[in-house]
Amino acid sequence: MSPPSQETITLADYVFTRLHQLGIRSVFGVPGDYNLRLLDFVEPAGLHWVGNCNELNSAYAADAYARIHGVSALVTTFGVGELSAVNGIAGAYAEKAPIISIVGTPARATQEARTNVHHTFADGDFDRFAAMHTHVTIAQTNLLDPRTAPDQFDVTVQQALIHSRPVYIQIPADMVDVKVPAAGLKSEISLPAASDSDSESRVSKRILELMHSAKKPLIFVDGESRCLDVLEGVNELVKTTGWPVWTSPFGKGLVDEHLASFQGIYNADLGSEDAKAYFESSDLALIFGPHFSSTNTALFSTIPKQAISVSFSERHVKIGSDITRDISNKNLVASLLKQLDRSKISKPAGPSKENSAPPSVVTLALPTQKDFYRIINPLLKPGDIVMGETGTASHGTRDLVLPSGSYYFTAVTWLSIGYMLPAALGAAMAQRDSNKWKKRSGSTSDSEDRVVLFIGDGSLQMTVQEISTMIREKLNIVIVVINNDGYTIERVIHGRKQTYNDIASWRYLQALNMFGATEEEVANNTFSAKTWGELEEAMKSDTFRSGQGIRMLEVFMEREDAQGFLLKLLNNQKAREQSKM
Amino acid sequence: MSPPSQETITLADYVFTRLHQLGIRSVFGVPGDYNLRLLDFVEPAGLHWVGNCNELNSAYAADAYARIHGVSALVTTFGVGELSAVNGIAGAYAEKAPIISIVGTPARATQEARTNVHHTFADGDFDRFAAMHTHVTIAQTNLLDPRTAPDQFDVTVQQALIHSRPVYIQIPADMVDVKVPAAGLKSEISLPAASDSDSESRVSKRILELMHSAKKPLIFVDGESRCLDVLEGVNELVKTTGWPVWTSPFGKGLVDEHLASFQGIYNADLGSEDAKAYFESSDLALIFGPHFSSTNTALFSTIPKQAISVSFSERHVKIGSDITRDISNKNLVASLLKQLDRSKISKPAGPSKENSAPPSVVTLALPTQKDFYRIINPLLKPGDIVMGETGTASHGTRDLVLPSGSYYFTAVTWLSIGYMLPAALGAAMAQRDSNKWKKRSGSTSDSEDRVVLFIGDGSLQMTVQEISTMIREKLNIVIVVINNDGYTIERVIHGRKQTYNDIASWRYLQALNMFGATEEEVANNTFSAKTWGELEEAMKSDTFRSGQGIRMLEVFMEREDAQGFLLKLLNNQKAREQSKM
Repeated sequence: MSPPSQETITLADYVFTRLHQLGIRSVFGVPGDYNLRLLDFVEPAGLHWVGNCNELNSAYAADAYARIHGVSALVTTFGVGELSAVNGIAGAYAEKAPIISIVGTPARATQEARTNVHHTFADGDFDRFAAMHTHVTIAQTNLLDPRTAPDQFDVTVQQALIHSRPVYIQIPADMVDVKVPAAGLKSEISLPAASDSDSESRVSKRILELMHSAKKPLIFVDGESRCLDVLEGVNELVKTTGWPVWTSPFGKGLVDEHLASFQGIYNADLGSEDAKAYFESSDLALIFGPHFSSTNTALFSTIPKQAISVSFSERHVKIGSDITRDISNKNLVASLLKQLDRSKISKPAGPSKENSAPPSVVTLALPTQKDFYRIINPLLKPGDIVMGETGTASHGTRDLVLPSGSYYFTAVTWLSIGYMLPAALGAAMAQRDSNKWKKRSGSTSDSEDRVVLFIGDGSLQMTVQEISTMIREKLNIVIVVINNDGYTIERVIHGRKQTYNDIASWRYLQALNMFGATEEEVANNTFSAKTWGELEEAMKSDTFRSGQGIRMLEVFMEREDAQGFLLKLLNNQKAREQSKM
Repeated sequence: MSPPSQETITLADYVFTRLHQLGIRSVFGVPGDYNLRLLDFVEPAGLHWVGNCNELNSAYAADAYARIHGVSALVTTFGVGELSAVNGIAGAYAEKAPIISIVGTPARATQEARTNVHHTFADGDFDRFAAMHTHVTIAQTNLLDPRTAPDQFDVTVQQALIHSRPVYIQIPADMVDVKVPAAGLKSEISLPAASDSDSESRVSKRILELMHSAKKPLIFVDGESRCLDVLEGVNELVKTTGWPVWTSPFGKGLVDEHLASFQGIYNADLGSEDAKAYFESSDLALIFGPHFSSTNTALFSTIPKQAISVSFSERHVKIGSDITRDISNKNLVASLLKQLDRSKISKPAGPSKENSAPPSVVTLALPTQKDFYRIINPLLKPGDIVMGETGTASHGTRDLVLPSGSYYFTAVTWLSIGYMLPAALGAAMAQRDSNKWKKRSGSTSDSEDRVVLFIGDGSLQMTVQEISTMIREKLNIVIVVINNDGYTIERVIHGRKQTYNDIASWRYLQALNMFGATEEEVANNTFSAKTWGELEEAMKSDTFRSGQGIRMLEVFMEREDAQGFLLKLLNNQKAREQSKM
């Protein structure tokens, strides 16, 4: 028997074994002739191939899978496939979803001879699509050499895991079944620990001093904390201190909304005056995972003052303006929890909470943006993944009170409409696949898994065909379509009466029929609400509320109806822009 | 009154007036908040806004519009929009369709301050998407300065027109209504004439000598001749000489198939032996618009020998290996026609033509790839635009005999599946809009316009929602869907029984219902053929054959059925690849 270091394996087996080791169980993508040989190795490696309807949809799905499970995989073909997917990769870069994007490329001989094959510009240049991807991925590699391919793969994937951003890996068709060293597979791809324990204890000491002396502290949980491996610690910290905790839109769902001191999304001028008064007079803000884009901060108005801030992020920990790098956020939070002297911390009375009594509505009236989300809130149950697509749905769903063990998607920074429907597919696949998710959500049975997607009609049209993949995969997904006859959020921004914000009128509920649902699903799983009364009826239906498979509810609203918050926000934005010009 | 040079106009008016001057009447794209102000100026400029379901579809549609009309326009929004469209732009680059791609970007102040707005990576970098577009467009510009914006726009558009390739133009939101000099609008954007008349007459003389002495001449029309403004001349040349004329797949439809000496697509080993014998023993090949990719040349087997070739292309005219640049192909062809001495040219007997008697089929049998296209050929009429999507449809439609005044789309080099359905929308819009098309096709009435699209089920799923735009625009389009339960062309290439080549089963004919066709269209305009008999019935229907609006025919075929030609071609390809490894 050869010594272990001499063992070999085909490159494709190496790659897919690595994905399996990462807990990935489903791979998204679309076949194409430069990746077909690669796809032969997917199912034998214990991975499920989810063939999507197109590549952009597959990238969106992979993005959501990565947010739920921690990492995901995508396989596309050279040129046409990878470029169709690139906007989804860019979104994953912007909002930190580590997709391992694998592109099947022409054989090395074809590339070296600069042969004018298809999916090129017939000019012998095979490098331009990789060059384009350098702008939207955190690391790139091209597996051209059997001797180094495994290490190249591992090092590149490691970058995805460390930075929670997509990476780009090219595999020429003739490299798929070459033999490569197998030794690496004996241990999983590991993340080196940040090891400067001196810095860590120094920073920990300083933060503890601030925590022990603060009179009006607060905790602010933003979306990038998802990638810091600190969420358990942060939730524990909130429980332990009882300090008021707010999130950004991106951070919603990362801290349990049923904790006593949970305040909701901080909205500065556009939220409660009490909250603002507390927030602005605070003398310590512990910020986890800051992501300070205009759209995630109500135009930069919700960012705590730097002078009172301790900020935990991927690159560094920052106390005021003082930066310390190369320490582990996870260790640091653990150390704070361990050393915190509960007798020394203040227990400020947080701001008064807003009244959350459900609105009363008139049975025969058309549903409104203002009240809809509070009316439908009781539909949600622990462990749901709740998604609000960019547009009015993303703003409306921010008002939902999320059950414990749930997860939430909303518009953050990339705001690519069309994202959320394929993302619902990806999230549901991860919900089914991921041990990490099951642990987090407390799920004990696949039948409890559910995704509830709120989406406007304009967004739905972008990527609608992925409903068929949801059906084929037999996923439990409730799709709530807001039918307001066009791009209402754009109407609110500009062009209220302009025809360019109109869209074609579809018969949305025909989707289950067209996209191949069973006769029974077509007959029973669609619901329509032109009035509050009809909405109430739908919500009483067992199939809608607690059934399996795909269900679809079409809710009609006024063309120009938008949430008051959204209108105020956009007014502020206009004022800002005017002042700049 | 100010002198003319002092007149000003808003930049948006300038831009859209220019598009109108180019004969463009429809603009494709999707609204987004960085382009909304720009869109306000579209309709007032006499242009029709075609809001597409998503940006990739809009780019595909613009590509086809450009192929029919000569140039087209696309408007998307920064980041998310332009990246969703980029694969369509790349395809237009590969196959020479001049799209003027206009991207609405954030206001200059926002960019200069590196503000972390949405549709960015929240890192202050606003340049990466433009950098990505340098790889897929022939020229780029950013209209940041009112003094120079009109000239920048004109010079960039000129590059699109000269090279028949897409260009990329950024317009910041605050530049939309700034005043710019209007003087340029007094004359249209012109293409400078190639002016080296000495070279031209020298080359003309040499080519005439070759034409006068050739014993076995042939004419080879390839697809890039569409962009050389020589098609009338080339057709005239075929008529005048009576020389055998072949096309490539890309060139099909550019020369009248009813000319006596028309031979069809040249297929070398895979076509008739007689044709090959003539072709290979020819002593002069006049090649127009060569595009020698593997997929357009049956793996490079159909390229005439350089020693006997005279090749007319965008960059140069090449006689044997001797290159002359900077002369006008159009003038050259005109000069050849004028000076050709008809008494001196040989009139070779061309190869015998293949038998084109329609196949006889069994009424109750399932339609087959081999016979389907010859059976449906009588559906076509003069002026049709006929489209065969990548896959079996692109190969099948190559056997169609096209009526005069028609135009043909097939898979050439980019081969991005999903392209052809939105392209059918774009082609139909151009058919309706374009005076250039009407002149070429001899169309006298809009009601005669028609697009006939042949498309496989796998391709249809990629971009299916654009059917709704066809419906909304009330276009005359016949969609023939080949239902063979997946990616048959991929099955043929690799993975005949692999599940990754399967797709979800849809109820395709529900598309008209879902996507908002009228009740009458839903009831009357769908057809299904599981047998030859049912196909015959459909073809007898007046609605299907000569009706208006959208019609859809679903034809069922075997999962693994593919044309014999395709199988042979792929066998050759495999042999080639094996020999390289």
